[in-house]
Amino acid sequence: MTAPDTNSPTAAVASPVPAKERIVIFDTTLRDGEQSPGASMTFEEKLVVADLLESMGVDVIEAGFPMASQGDFDSVQEIARRSKTAIIAGLARAIPADIARAGDAVKPAARPRIHTFVSTSPIHLAHQMKKTEEQVLEIISATVAQARNLVDDVEWSAMDATRTPLDYLCRCVEMAIRAGATTINLPDTVGYAVPEEYAAMFREVRARVPNADKAIFSTHCHDDLGLAVANSLAGVAGGARQIECTINGLGERAGNAALEEVVMAIRTRGDVMPYMTGIDTRQLVRASKLVSNASAFPVQYNKAIVGQNAFAHESGIHQDGMLKNAETYEIMRPEDVGVKSTSLVMGKHSGRHAFKEKLKDLGIELGDNALEDAFKRFKDLADKKKHVFDEDIEALVSDGLETAGETIKVIALTVIAGTAGPQSATITLDVAGTHITKMASGDGPVDATFNAIKAIQPHEAVLRLYQVSAVTEGTDAQAEVFIRLEDAGKQVTGRAADTDTLVASAKAYISALNKLKSARGRVNAQAMAAV
Amino acid sequence: MTAPDTNSPTAAVASPVPAKERIVIFDTTLRDGEQSPGASMTFEEKLVVADLLESMGVDVIEAGFPMASQGDFDSVQEIARRSKTAIIAGLARAIPADIARAGDAVKPAARPRIHTFVSTSPIHLAHQMKKTEEQVLEIISATVAQARNLVDDVEWSAMDATRTPLDYLCRCVEMAIRAGATTINLPDTVGYAVPEEYAAMFREVRARVPNADKAIFSTHCHDDLGLAVANSLAGVAGGARQIECTINGLGERAGNAALEEVVMAIRTRGDVMPYMTGIDTRQLVRASKLVSNASAFPVQYNKAIVGQNAFAHESGIHQDGMLKNAETYEIMRPEDVGVKSTSLVMGKHSGRHAFKEKLKDLGIELGDNALEDAFKRFKDLADKKKHVFDEDIEALVSDGLETAGETIKVIALTVIAGTAGPQSATITLDVAGTHITKMASGDGPVDATFNAIKAIQPHEAVLRLYQVSAVTEGTDAQAEVFIRLEDAGKQVTGRAADTDTLVASAKAYISALNKLKSARGRVNAQAMAAV
Repeated sequence: MTAPDTNSPTAAVASPVPAKERIVIFDTTLRDGEQSPGASMTFEEKLVVADLLESMGVDVIEAGFPMASQGDFDSVQEIARRSKTAIIAGLARAIPADIARAGDAVKPAARPRIHTFVSTSPIHLAHQMKKTEEQVLEIISATVAQARNLVDDVEWSAMDATRTPLDYLCRCVEMAIRAGATTINLPDTVGYAVPEEYAAMFREVRARVPNADKAIFSTHCHDDLGLAVANSLAGVAGGARQIECTINGLGERAGNAALEEVVMAIRTRGDVMPYMTGIDTRQLVRASKLVSNASAFPVQYNKAIVGQNAFAHESGIHQDGMLKNAETYEIMRPEDVGVKSTSLVMGKHSGRHAFKEKLKDLGIELGDNALEDAFKRFKDLADKKKHVFDEDIEALVSDGLETAGETIKVIALTVIAGTAGPQSATITLDVAGTHITKMASGDGPVDATFNAIKAIQPHEAVLRLYQVSAVTEGTDAQAEVFIRLEDAGKQVTGRAADTDTLVASAKAYISALNKLKSARGRVNAQAMAAV
Repeated sequence: MTAPDTNSPTAAVASPVPAKERIVIFDTTLRDGEQSPGASMTFEEKLVVADLLESMGVDVIEAGFPMASQGDFDSVQEIARRSKTAIIAGLARAIPADIARAGDAVKPAARPRIHTFVSTSPIHLAHQMKKTEEQVLEIISATVAQARNLVDDVEWSAMDATRTPLDYLCRCVEMAIRAGATTINLPDTVGYAVPEEYAAMFREVRARVPNADKAIFSTHCHDDLGLAVANSLAGVAGGARQIECTINGLGERAGNAALEEVVMAIRTRGDVMPYMTGIDTRQLVRASKLVSNASAFPVQYNKAIVGQNAFAHESGIHQDGMLKNAETYEIMRPEDVGVKSTSLVMGKHSGRHAFKEKLKDLGIELGDNALEDAFKRFKDLADKKKHVFDEDIEALVSDGLETAGETIKVIALTVIAGTAGPQSATITLDVAGTHITKMASGDGPVDATFNAIKAIQPHEAVLRLYQVSAVTEGTDAQAEVFIRLEDAGKQVTGRAADTDTLVASAKAYISALNKLKSARGRVNAQAMAAV
């Protein structure tokens, strides 16, 4: 790094601050993220996530994989309809029917994109595709051309690019660009690359492919070896100008590069990385919470940027005055990523206006009906709980999102539990308008509660995850329960919050059961795509 | 990469596989990890973690910061006493009393190390130390020499090295080596570096410092920008031969480089990184669980290597035969990191011998008394639960470790809960031999239970974390409850497992209360060290 020579009389003219190049942020939380085992989101959850992604300045939102199921098609189409500024992408395999379906789904968007991919590595060609190199080249040409006839913005991905011989990779890229691809993505599908080789791949491909200047190159990194963020930045150093990433690093296996980490690395180290993104970083923590809630994937405390300890040095180091200067230990300001330094406490005396202002502060916008519902839940909570914190409000608002379309509801629950055992639960459910009450016993109050539900609503679903956390601190905190049920290979999650853990458990279980019932034959997306 | 030319008749002689250089793995889970806000471990937990670290082949175990408190001194000393092969390090500021204390603590080790550090960056010198560069050089000389008079193995760290001008950093390093330092650590204290500059720093320092060949250089990276693993590997590329890291990436703020990630990256990409470590990788998952339990820091599902989804593609991709060849998507084998492919189910008919064999399989060794205790808990559990899985056994064994020294015990609990409210709990506690029973109500059954405990045992502690997870799948699973209490700035965690969530909650709360009571005036270590 050489600093501009400010002693030179012409310095101001000769060494202007160089313009920072814009990096396109492509978020695939709703596609690669949502296809991680157990992270499925509902239609409504996907819309809320997409709205937030757009409002925080994500350039490209990969909204789903339209061919995977009617549900995926519907959510991509609805996200496309609602979009204003962001490019909305739909994923498609290198199959004509997939591409047509993706084209239909993204059509309503102001800026639609079809993202099509095919494997290029020898191991994938031999074992998965059972095709020759020449056959795959023809497929690339035909499918990219088909996509380009449907939309002007076509991204092509060389699946398993990092394990593809460079000569063949270059031929594929050249073919895809010639057929009309405007973005070329070279993913590290299996999370195998190290930064130097990932940078070198982009450098080589861009140097060797004659029409490389006609496309934007893109990174897509998985974190299997803990290198997804470093590889993404290395790809940019090698000439890529789009980064594919997800909120919280959600995604297949160890996940994708975390959006919040790549964005904050670029922002914080602008001195050595002369790039910028269009992301409003103050919404990062809120996006992290929203996606954690919708996916039922908790964020670990020491997660970079958005973990609850990420800025915890502030409270930890307080005894010897190390913080006479915050920069001593702080390279980012908490408020830059949306960590609120003060938390305005709401209580039972807060009115509708104050509640609405609070939601605005939290970046939450609700329609009139949803606002009224949320306000009612807020008042109920304020009756039970001394202080209602921001996190409580975020929880009750996102809780409300899940109740849409529920056919079974929890009316009443009584549990007798303790060391004497067996524990028993009596539950009343509203099933399509009829109240049914049953009692059951079990190993512990949760088991008893679930057995009582099962007595009313028999099912084969297996509990895969049961998790409770306090939304805020203190013993009168709202408990938030995540439940994951599996039935016939399909996993759904339910989430609910209540000051009573057992009531929250019953509601979360019913929420998951409702999702299982309302599922529209979604096929297992994991089996179809793993770019 | 050029492959050996096997067509050449002399290939076998001329191109032997180059010997891989050994990288020293320095684990600081018990020091930097344990000083993350909320992650404090008990004396007993630290010993168990240290035993496992040694058995898995960690070269250097940083056992604590002896000057921080009597408790820290005691655990470092006891770990030093028990150690057989690992180097045991104790941390010390550049203060004579600290160094003497660290020397006393590590003395019983077969291979003791004193690790002393001082800030070298201008911002730390100006704001924190209020010393000149020359004064700091004198301090380095005096303190390293003092340490070297106590032990032969002295590590010196340049705190905030990555924000220290290179010329001054080189002078400091030269001085430390001259005074007797055998390892030189150049930490990225604030998690600010990017890989190229971190590599360049090591390369430059090693090239410029005349006596650089007399010390081993070490990395110590924080993950604030998601780059800790990449930076550690870059440091090695720049000439470092020790990596400081923690299990699960535990540590201040966003944590340190994760041991499991750096070790598996080196192992998996041996083709581009000609290094090796002495770690038995098959113990990585077990170490992750142990540290997660002891610290009450959950591991996120998509955490690399040890997250529950890290190898989940195996179940996710099953429909279209992608797994005709596992390498299609798999760069590591689950069994290499200790993910068990089969889970031998134990039940109420399993005897003492089978239980002992099972513990052996799980890598758990217990003394006769502890074994008898664990077997009794296992039989109790098997009475309540159809199948007892490996995870249940690991939970009940690590549960037993915490009961040592408890003065209050849960005797009986009855809870009446549900939507009608207020919920009530009646609890009987054994307080130093006397049984006391009280009833209390609350917002939800958990709040009522905690209120009943408080009625018997009044205290000012505030609940900072309440978290429940099912140890294994299914509704008859054991619930595992983590609780974090804070009293007068001091945080402790309690953990307990039971098939009844409320009983587990009461036990975890009591466990945390016992820890608060038995605390030996530990000062806040966070305030003292943040290398």
